[in-house]
Amino acid sequence: MMKDAIKEAEILSQALPYIQKYSHKIIVVKYGGNAMKNEELKHNVMTDIVLLSEIGIKVVLVHGGGPSINAMLDKVGIKPKFINGLRYTDKETMDVVQMVLAGQTNKELVSILNGKGAKAVGVCGSDASLIVAKKYESEDDLGYVGQVDQINPSLIYDLLDQHYIPVIASVGCDSEGNAYNINADIAASSIAQELGAENMVLVSDVPGILKDPKDETSLYSNISSDQIDELIESDYISGGMIPKVNCIKTALAGGVKKSCIIDGRIPHSLLIEILSKQGIGTLFTRKETL
Amino acid sequence: MMKDAIKEAEILSQALPYIQKYSHKIIVVKYGGNAMKNEELKHNVMTDIVLLSEIGIKVVLVHGGGPSINAMLDKVGIKPKFINGLRYTDKETMDVVQMVLAGQTNKELVSILNGKGAKAVGVCGSDASLIVAKKYESEDDLGYVGQVDQINPSLIYDLLDQHYIPVIASVGCDSEGNAYNINADIAASSIAQELGAENMVLVSDVPGILKDPKDETSLYSNISSDQIDELIESDYISGGMIPKVNCIKTALAGGVKKSCIIDGRIPHSLLIEILSKQGIGTLFTRKETL
Amino acid sequence: MMKDAIKEAEILSQALPYIQKYSHKIIVVKYGGNAMKNEELKHNVMTDIVLLSEIGIKVVLVHGGGPSINAMLDKVGIKPKFINGLRYTDKETMDVVQMVLAGQTNKELVSILNGKGAKAVGVCGSDASLIVAKKYESEDDLGYVGQVDQINPSLIYDLLDQHYIPVIASVGCDSEGNAYNINADIAASSIAQELGAENMVLVSDVPGILKDPKDETSLYSNISSDQIDELIESDYISGGMIPKVNCIKTALAGGVKKSCIIDGRIPHSLLIEILSKQGIGTLFTRKETL
Amino acid sequence: MMKDAIKEAEILSQALPYIQKYSHKIIVVKYGGNAMKNEELKHNVMTDIVLLSEIGIKVVLVHGGGPSINAMLDKVGIKPKFINGLRYTDKETMDVVQMVLAGQTNKELVSILNGKGAKAVGVCGSDASLIVAKKYESEDDLGYVGQVDQINPSLIYDLLDQHYIPVIASVGCDSEGNAYNINADIAASSIAQELGAENMVLVSDVPGILKDPKDETSLYSNISSDQIDELIESDYISGGMIPKVNCIKTALAGGVKKSCIIDGRIPHSLLIEILSKQGIGTLFTRKETL
Amino acid sequence: MMKDAIKEAEILSQALPYIQKYSHKIIVVKYGGNAMKNEELKHNVMTDIVLLSEIGIKVVLVHGGGPSINAMLDKVGIKPKFINGLRYTDKETMDVVQMVLAGQTNKELVSILNGKGAKAVGVCGSDASLIVAKKYESEDDLGYVGQVDQINPSLIYDLLDQHYIPVIASVGCDSEGNAYNINADIAASSIAQELGAENMVLVSDVPGILKDPKDETSLYSNISSDQIDELIESDYISGGMIPKVNCIKTALAGGVKKSCIIDGRIPHSLLIEILSKQGIGTLFTRKETL
Amino acid sequence: MMKDAIKEAEILSQALPYIQKYSHKIIVVKYGGNAMKNEELKHNVMTDIVLLSEIGIKVVLVHGGGPSINAMLDKVGIKPKFINGLRYTDKETMDVVQMVLAGQTNKELVSILNGKGAKAVGVCGSDASLIVAKKYESEDDLGYVGQVDQINPSLIYDLLDQHYIPVIASVGCDSEGNAYNINADIAASSIAQELGAENMVLVSDVPGILKDPKDETSLYSNISSDQIDELIESDYISGGMIPKVNCIKTALAGGVKKSCIIDGRIPHSLLIEILSKQGIGTLFTRKETL
Repeated sequence: MMKDAIKEAEILSQALPYIQKYSHKIIVVKYGGNAMKNEELKHNVMTDIVLLSEIGIKVVLVHGGGPSINAMLDKVGIKPKFINGLRYTDKETMDVVQMVLAGQTNKELVSILNGKGAKAVGVCGSDASLIVAKKYESEDDLGYVGQVDQINPSLIYDLLDQHYIPVIASVGCDSEGNAYNINADIAASSIAQELGAENMVLVSDVPGILKDPKDETSLYSNISSDQIDELIESDYISGGMIPKVNCIKTALAGGVKKSCIIDGRIPHSLLIEILSKQGIGTLFTRKETL
Repeated sequence: MMKDAIKEAEILSQALPYIQKYSHKIIVVKYGGNAMKNEELKHNVMTDIVLLSEIGIKVVLVHGGGPSINAMLDKVGIKPKFINGLRYTDKETMDVVQMVLAGQTNKELVSILNGKGAKAVGVCGSDASLIVAKKYESEDDLGYVGQVDQINPSLIYDLLDQHYIPVIASVGCDSEGNAYNINADIAASSIAQELGAENMVLVSDVPGILKDPKDETSLYSNISSDQIDELIESDYISGGMIPKVNCIKTALAGGVKKSCIIDGRIPHSLLIEILSKQGIGTLFTRKETL
Repeated sequence: MMKDAIKEAEILSQALPYIQKYSHKIIVVKYGGNAMKNEELKHNVMTDIVLLSEIGIKVVLVHGGGPSINAMLDKVGIKPKFINGLRYTDKETMDVVQMVLAGQTNKELVSILNGKGAKAVGVCGSDASLIVAKKYESEDDLGYVGQVDQINPSLIYDLLDQHYIPVIASVGCDSEGNAYNINADIAASSIAQELGAENMVLVSDVPGILKDPKDETSLYSNISSDQIDELIESDYISGGMIPKVNCIKTALAGGVKKSCIIDGRIPHSLLIEILSKQGIGTLFTRKETL
Repeated sequence: MMKDAIKEAEILSQALPYIQKYSHKIIVVKYGGNAMKNEELKHNVMTDIVLLSEIGIKVVLVHGGGPSINAMLDKVGIKPKFINGLRYTDKETMDVVQMVLAGQTNKELVSILNGKGAKAVGVCGSDASLIVAKKYESEDDLGYVGQVDQINPSLIYDLLDQHYIPVIASVGCDSEGNAYNINADIAASSIAQELGAENMVLVSDVPGILKDPKDETSLYSNISSDQIDELIESDYISGGMIPKVNCIKTALAGGVKKSCIIDGRIPHSLLIEILSKQGIGTLFTRKETL
Repeated sequence: MMKDAIKEAEILSQALPYIQKYSHKIIVVKYGGNAMKNEELKHNVMTDIVLLSEIGIKVVLVHGGGPSINAMLDKVGIKPKFINGLRYTDKETMDVVQMVLAGQTNKELVSILNGKGAKAVGVCGSDASLIVAKKYESEDDLGYVGQVDQINPSLIYDLLDQHYIPVIASVGCDSEGNAYNINADIAASSIAQELGAENMVLVSDVPGILKDPKDETSLYSNISSDQIDELIESDYISGGMIPKVNCIKTALAGGVKKSCIIDGRIPHSLLIEILSKQGIGTLFTRKETL
Repeated sequence: MMKDAIKEAEILSQALPYIQKYSHKIIVVKYGGNAMKNEELKHNVMTDIVLLSEIGIKVVLVHGGGPSINAMLDKVGIKPKFINGLRYTDKETMDVVQMVLAGQTNKELVSILNGKGAKAVGVCGSDASLIVAKKYESEDDLGYVGQVDQINPSLIYDLLDQHYIPVIASVGCDSEGNAYNINADIAASSIAQELGAENMVLVSDVPGILKDPKDETSLYSNISSDQIDELIESDYISGGMIPKVNCIKTALAGGVKKSCIIDGRIPHSLLIEILSKQGIGTLFTRKETL
């Protein structure tokens, strides 16, 4: 038993260089979609966030909603409508999206974090005009699908300075008070850039970028910015992963130090990524690091 | 035209003593229910709040939801259930209540305030464990109807210190993460007591307390704490007004300097109450002031 | 009566954009000369200043003395002496000028402001070496008539930071301790430039710049910097108004955002200018705004 | 020459314990009357104040006017009028008193201090309502002779915190804006009590309290509070010295640690008193120290 | 490998409640004597301290010297002299003691801590008069063996506030500049009391208090203050452990929340004690906790 | 006796301009070697430092050890070894050097300063990695003789901000924890450059730079940077004075305003240099000042 204790302490002790590396630095964690489905894993991710926050890392949590939104739309009898894989959002749908994201998912995450001893505060893009949005510019009209016009980070800084964990629902707002549905990866990326985050971690439900999609062990550990286009062209990155990775590319170009896609289904994948030598998932850096 | 300008400036100038009186003091404004129905009046109330905040008064806005909640319950096919005039709230209903309050009404008010140049931040009781709630103690089981167990005011102070307007949805949260529906008047009263507010203003859709309910001009301008029980017994205060007035009684006993019920249907009733000699509605004070 | 209240509140509410515009900004008000003669108007101007200060605008009051100086010179048997319209100031006269400005006018304004609930502090150019002056450079020796050599604004900033209203008598001082009579418009202009004031308001006893001097309604509402020389040449601006307007021209060139000449005889002209859409008097801006 | 330097440095070095004793403590220096007549001595006193301030002692200078007031009253043809040795002050006289004190003497002292490298700010009792006064209560009506009603010390603390030397003219002001002539010893005593001063030094034109008024060497070095009444009864303290000593008695009873009367005609008597073992003049303490 | 990572992260995650418990609290760690002999363990203890400091715990390290002192005394040819188990310390010996403690052991610990990324600052009792000492009062004259007269904690607070780890050599100093050898346990206890430490950890070279001194597994896990005397009387606590335990008793009586004796020979015993459920060694609390 | 007092006060008063000149500025004093031998002079130098600190000058004391090191090396039987006039330092010697410097000399100076009422804190280069050192680069291997690699001034600033006097032993430390003997003049010079000191004063045991080494009155009062090389070439500066003067040259080139060599054997030479017109010793400035 004492041996176990020593081994456990040894493990704690090995985290020291990582704790020092990220001390007082900002990490943006994007959590959402399918990674949210399993309650136990959700609690694990939240525990990890509280721990990171407690040891002096400034964690900003950005989340989408995913399944809950569809469930609610279903309940109120609104059929989701997709155009080229992007959700078309009419006013009525947007009302539901905002309610679920800012009133349900957001507050649930806040409650879990606070239940673990944290001081979390849930906000969305309209609070203190945090995410100023405008209609998404595209060929097709996507309704209240928005793109980020401006990030006003003062509220986040004020909350972080007072040791709160900001939990941000990916809803934007324009100056007329219209709410827009913002893709959570894009919201996280815009916020991470504005804050000059040390790391943007996308907690997903896949292991990362795979060389062979059928083989979960064929993981790319490291991808550099300049490899991304090539990997997309050669179809190693495909489907829903493309916008996600482009989001990362933009983040890195915009000043975020590094970014990674990790598997939220693996217990404590966030802690492993941040506080251990080996890391987990796929790490994206500005220059090739292999 | 110059005469008009002079007269207008004279009016501004007459507000000076009231501005000085409330300077850097806290006012809790409760806004909700039917007073929210008219869009123009809603904008007027919000403009008043921005103005009060801008001239150096610390305004905390507490709100309920009222009609929107019922509309949404209706949409998802849940029938509201009342026990002795208090809403019975099952889990499914509570989910909708929280979503509407924290995700819709709250964010709508925040957006209107910010659109007028304020820095408003919308939170609910779960944020930073602001309103710790527990199941409402009563003879009848009311489900997720809650009562205030504790107010943790740090978040409000931190927001006020940074010149944000806190907008608080009257949803409480216990340590297990269960959300509870808290009556907005009670939430406002608990918060006002914890903050030692200078004034708690209930923006309602009635003129105040009337001597003759059929005669809107038969208004009580002033009621002191010790008159309340008598007025209830003699039926001058009755129906839904009783819990509201008891809320005020508790607030005054708990340290709030004064409180008033004003008519949200009158344009700028909030400004009139706070910044003019005459006041409006019914003012409640600790000692008889007539 | 309720209608009046609503209308009054409406007026207050319309001031909001102007309050927001000037919030935490610096306004330099120059008050002096004939505009000081009427006691009621003096009280109105002071009320306006207290109100502006109370709603979060940083007001700096600069004043001359005018009639009181001559009255005192008369009492002690000193005959005022003018050279080319500028007062010649011998040592004995200067002593009287300083006594009246710094010991009488200054303290009277301070007392009025404090009587209205403000925290005003009266200083002159020698305090903390606020206005370092030197002998006025001109063809004619004007004795202790001075010009501004340097403004040391620390004291003003320190007072504004502690929410005092600085009231500054336009007396300068050189390093040997000699006091100099500084034209109050020039003192205000130098101070406004050093502080980067949002607005420099000259409270005068004329309506502003008139197209037809006999017709008070023929007012120029707006004059841009580059129009000034032309208006002087074509005699629209003449006499004592010329140095005043040149003072404004210098202020605008030196970083003051805008400046205006308003009529101190009109009640609350200062409030009208700052807090209403229509403005009053003649506004000077850097670029033509008509 | 080196010997001289060493001796001089030795003297500086001997001041160390006194510098440490008074470090960051408040000393109120009252300077006025005949002690002001000699220009050289005035400069010496001011140099001493700058030095004390520079080495970390918080010096507050309170002054009267004395001879200058009479000179000015004479100039304007007002005859001073005394009732029982106290000046009767009509409105016209009060105007002159205030002008001379706040506009002349005050600013002259400020200029001298600043000329020696200090940051002095001259104020009077009306500034920030520093000295709230009321009509002196006595059998005889003394006009605008006032007594201290309240000291509002915030302005002094604010100035001291920013390392300014506050120079205070002994003029009080009531809430209606009436100025009152306050005896400078009393003003100094009231201020010293409010500030809990470490020492109140009255710079006078006598050596101190003499056992034999004709023999300047017959000086009392130390007098304790409880000896004062006896010394007055036995005529050792008499004439104009009586109110001065009563002032000291009140100061000591009100919390001032110690007080002394020193001879302003002796060069650097202030430095000798504060920074040397021997002291100078008569020291008053709460308990007998002989 | 992934399994290992998950298990490791799980261990990190289990430390969260302990991290939260000690967050921003003060822990005094006493390290010295034989526990210092093994270089690897010394590094382990220092790593633990850096980790605790990095995750937000305010660690104060107090140390003695032990073997190094004797080694140096030997080198310079001074024979150590003990009276009743306490070192007799002549002036020459004291010079060596201070040199070794403050100049060697102290700086070595500081260097190790800083080499691991900490900001450690080494001081002794004379720095900022941290430990004011006087001659140890006892029947036998022990020379420069001292006892604590007063702790002046400002320097420790100032260093902790700036996120330095204070490393304190157990040397005291009187006002004449005489250094005294202070028992390190006593120094730690005095400091822990003055700081109101959450925990005082004595890192020793024994497992803790044993029921059977020959059986290292017969450890008392918990001892309450009121058991101590009895355990001494019944010889369970004996020899050099008696003063150590009395030190703990004093600390608990003087406001230290809890204290423990842990085995510095066990790797990471400090981390195990502070950050895990099981603890290690013997824990002393004010009330019986078994 | 009064005359003496006046004269003494006059001397104090003449120090005013120098007090003002150095107010809140940083002076680095290097004290060491033979200048430390006389106990009385040591106390004089420390008194001077306390006085300078007390009147608002930020004094940083850097010291070497000199005679004490050799005495201790002798005691432990280590023979000092010099290579080209620089001490060769093996590991064993370095241990003694550090112990004496950081554990004896440093703490002795700290105790003397604190005994005079100061708040001094003794540190060496390893504390907070203040002086990062590396092996001295030279033709001959000098063992643990080091040169400054980097100065991390945060600890000094933190101590000065809290009104401590930092006392720094000239021992450096590399990242592996190896201590190095740093020449105290060089340490002082590096620190003075990093701090942008107003003056670096080398307290020595010679009068300064002499034109005729046999004639102590043939002192150079002023030497400018560009004269140094010439004076070395022409042998006016020779022997051990050469590295000292080169140190000064580097300091001046690196931003130190001025530097001087003064004679520590003259009582209060430090006060004379800093607080009097005449100065003492040889002053080095960037440009020729004769």
